[in-house]
Amino acid sequence: MKKDEGEVKAALCGGSDRRGKGGREENWLPAFLAEFPEMATASPDALAQNAGDAWLAAHPPQAVAYPESAESVARLARWASAAAVPITARGAGRGYVGGCVPIQGGIVVNFSRMNRIREIDPQDGVAIVEPGVITAHLQEAAAKLGWFYPPDPASAAESSLGGNIATNAGGPRCLKYGVTRHYVLGLEVVLADGTRVRVGGRTHKNKVGFDLVGLFVGSEGLLGLVTEATLRLIPHPPYRVAVAAVFPTVEAAAGTVERIFGAGLLPSALEIADRLTLERAREFCEEPIPPGDAHLFIECDGQPAGVDAEIDRLLPILRRAGAGEVRIGRGEEGCERLWRIRRSFSLALKQSGLTKLNEDVVVPRRRLVDLLRLGREIERRFGFPVACFGHAGDGNIHVNLMIDRSLPGAEARAEEALDLLFAQVIGWGGSITGEHGIGLAKDRWWPLAASPEVRKLHERLKAALDPAGLLNPGKFV
Amino acid sequence: MKKDEGEVKAALCGGSDRRGKGGREENWLPAFLAEFPEMATASPDALAQNAGDAWLAAHPPQAVAYPESAESVARLARWASAAAVPITARGAGRGYVGGCVPIQGGIVVNFSRMNRIREIDPQDGVAIVEPGVITAHLQEAAAKLGWFYPPDPASAAESSLGGNIATNAGGPRCLKYGVTRHYVLGLEVVLADGTRVRVGGRTHKNKVGFDLVGLFVGSEGLLGLVTEATLRLIPHPPYRVAVAAVFPTVEAAAGTVERIFGAGLLPSALEIADRLTLERAREFCEEPIPPGDAHLFIECDGQPAGVDAEIDRLLPILRRAGAGEVRIGRGEEGCERLWRIRRSFSLALKQSGLTKLNEDVVVPRRRLVDLLRLGREIERRFGFPVACFGHAGDGNIHVNLMIDRSLPGAEARAEEALDLLFAQVIGWGGSITGEHGIGLAKDRWWPLAASPEVRKLHERLKAALDPAGLLNPGKFV
Repeated sequence: MKKDEGEVKAALCGGSDRRGKGGREENWLPAFLAEFPEMATASPDALAQNAGDAWLAAHPPQAVAYPESAESVARLARWASAAAVPITARGAGRGYVGGCVPIQGGIVVNFSRMNRIREIDPQDGVAIVEPGVITAHLQEAAAKLGWFYPPDPASAAESSLGGNIATNAGGPRCLKYGVTRHYVLGLEVVLADGTRVRVGGRTHKNKVGFDLVGLFVGSEGLLGLVTEATLRLIPHPPYRVAVAAVFPTVEAAAGTVERIFGAGLLPSALEIADRLTLERAREFCEEPIPPGDAHLFIECDGQPAGVDAEIDRLLPILRRAGAGEVRIGRGEEGCERLWRIRRSFSLALKQSGLTKLNEDVVVPRRRLVDLLRLGREIERRFGFPVACFGHAGDGNIHVNLMIDRSLPGAEARAEEALDLLFAQVIGWGGSITGEHGIGLAKDRWWPLAASPEVRKLHERLKAALDPAGLLNPGKFV
Repeated sequence: MKKDEGEVKAALCGGSDRRGKGGREENWLPAFLAEFPEMATASPDALAQNAGDAWLAAHPPQAVAYPESAESVARLARWASAAAVPITARGAGRGYVGGCVPIQGGIVVNFSRMNRIREIDPQDGVAIVEPGVITAHLQEAAAKLGWFYPPDPASAAESSLGGNIATNAGGPRCLKYGVTRHYVLGLEVVLADGTRVRVGGRTHKNKVGFDLVGLFVGSEGLLGLVTEATLRLIPHPPYRVAVAAVFPTVEAAAGTVERIFGAGLLPSALEIADRLTLERAREFCEEPIPPGDAHLFIECDGQPAGVDAEIDRLLPILRRAGAGEVRIGRGEEGCERLWRIRRSFSLALKQSGLTKLNEDVVVPRRRLVDLLRLGREIERRFGFPVACFGHAGDGNIHVNLMIDRSLPGAEARAEEALDLLFAQVIGWGGSITGEHGIGLAKDRWWPLAASPEVRKLHERLKAALDPAGLLNPGKFV
């Protein structure tokens, strides 16, 4: 079962051998629906709506539950544990790797009704949220009070904080502010057996025992179900300035990254885009995009005088590095105008009608130019377009393979190209995923990315927390 | 066995019931010394030197090993695993909670010979270090190249990065820059059975599997032995300014913290000191300290113009909040002059001749004033001085109980006072430790600080990674 609309993201097959029956006891469904009439359904619509995410694989659950409280989640997990029925947590379903796809069926726990911001407390510098809160909603509510929740995945307007926590979501601002993990102070988690547990808390520092908060963040729903998060807020930077600089080559743009850091600057975003990305964006985006084969997008934030000083230091660096036209957007509106270009890339590429395989590889920064060259090498060798853009400051580049799936053998060739990409990235000391996670999409390369010892550690942790293997089964552990 | 010199840190007893025989096989020592002649010793000096840390409890191991390579550590762990002999890792021995005290004897693995900075790579923004590297040495080496390793525990000049990693060390700069965890990209770890495993890596982002790096950071030597760390460096902020402001009351000083954040400022340090701390410091510190019962110490860093702008915003806030004399130190030298006062607090208190029980409690920031009042309440109720200072911006205050242990019943009263302090801090939603960890010192309050469910999770994780319980046995799990 595959979705034929939307963006497809990674390995074009895989997962089918993992599809199970969804429950070790037969005929659990009527009992389940009878037990949880207030939140459970097996309607065809609900099953279809909870079958996939933003990646290509989809598989329906046998039932969906829409809990409204942690106690309901716990009761549900206790029931599922007793009946040996798989449970797969689902946030907003905006993941890029099929992480919330219930590949073995069972019950999807859909958190969309647990979408309240319980508290924003500037005095303590915390927000307490239910997992179904849309990330942008928290950002906006905090900003109104002068406070800042920095993590900014591209999907922030649609993705949920629970999903962000499950994948340890990133975004452009990670460069200066760090990933989701750095903003999670405490969690309430329902374990596989239905136990409710609070880890971490409301304080900005906590060294009581092991880092259980960190263990659950990024665990892709395999270790527990997050029912509440206490998030760290920081004072909102009062000002920001964005700079968009055009370069003749992507090598020149990428080489500039090092010079920016070398000058002691730590921008809040440092993004790159290559020729193909810009070409597509020029056709699609209403903002004019000047000629040039590469684009560097830099944002600095903080006190106005400090930001202006940073921009004053930045501009000569860009010029010396060979930048052509440089545009500057000051303040909210000026920045957002330039961000519209950056944000158009993904949609512009999708408009091509080709299938966009968006990989989120990370390389040590010195390999940035090599990675961008590898993109072009793959283009030449495999004959399909490759568009690269993303978080140059982190070495985290979205390498998009643009596949015409109507051509015979296209999927096999794409997979071969990904084999090459991932092997080379790992050879450079890089990582096959910086933001999206493993899910189903990267399952094929999990053994390449994780050593036997690391996989064994994952198995031990999984067995320790979910011995019956009921949480999001069929995934990488 | 107790040390009679030095600072003592927390619960005055405890641990004795945990002292075991150090090895489940008798007479393992000769075989061990014969197996590892190049690094193992049982000399009385070595045993005494590896018995304690900066807290009061000490217990000698039966042997000490000084490995020079990860392979040696792995070989040693394999041997100890086969012989069922406990292993306790030791960095520089500057911990505050007896965390590296081999309370059940066995072998101490002393990492002082693994003290090389293997690599500082500004291009990738990483440093690769052995665990025995002194924290300040890395900071200095990175700064020479214009790069910055932000974590700054007070013990940075003496503590090792391996120890910092074991405790997820903090420091004043955590406020803006985050704790040690946020700077660890990769680790090489030797597991209890001698398996060598690399987790994380050299990239600034990594979403491959569970957060194993985070699991080992802060695990106090209970889950594995770190033999190498890849650390994240950031461009060194080119400028900093420190401000020391005197307030008539500690309430006025503490209340100012909220106003600073409310103005959109995120200083790199925001420290507080109370009357008793200042009185002692005035007697001890060569820098003049103006009159006033409380002191706020604020540092901002970044681009010079930005820092100056932050200070311009800060000064009227301090004045409106009732600050008296305000001194400003600009640049390295100016800042360091003011930091000398801040850094004198601990030594000045120790000069009193009393035993200083330094607790590192954390409260939600709105409870800052309440916590400082509680310090005075404890003083009144129990009759010994209580000096409070520390990281006000994080709500992380060092509450120092100054005990005259020559008085009958002093230790029991101190323990009673700590019972009160910790119960109230937890009642406020706070944490009994923000930086030091549990170790032996906080063992008595572990059940208070961690729910039965959280303790059970710790047991499961410990059993998953160290089923025989040979790593740092006798501690909180």
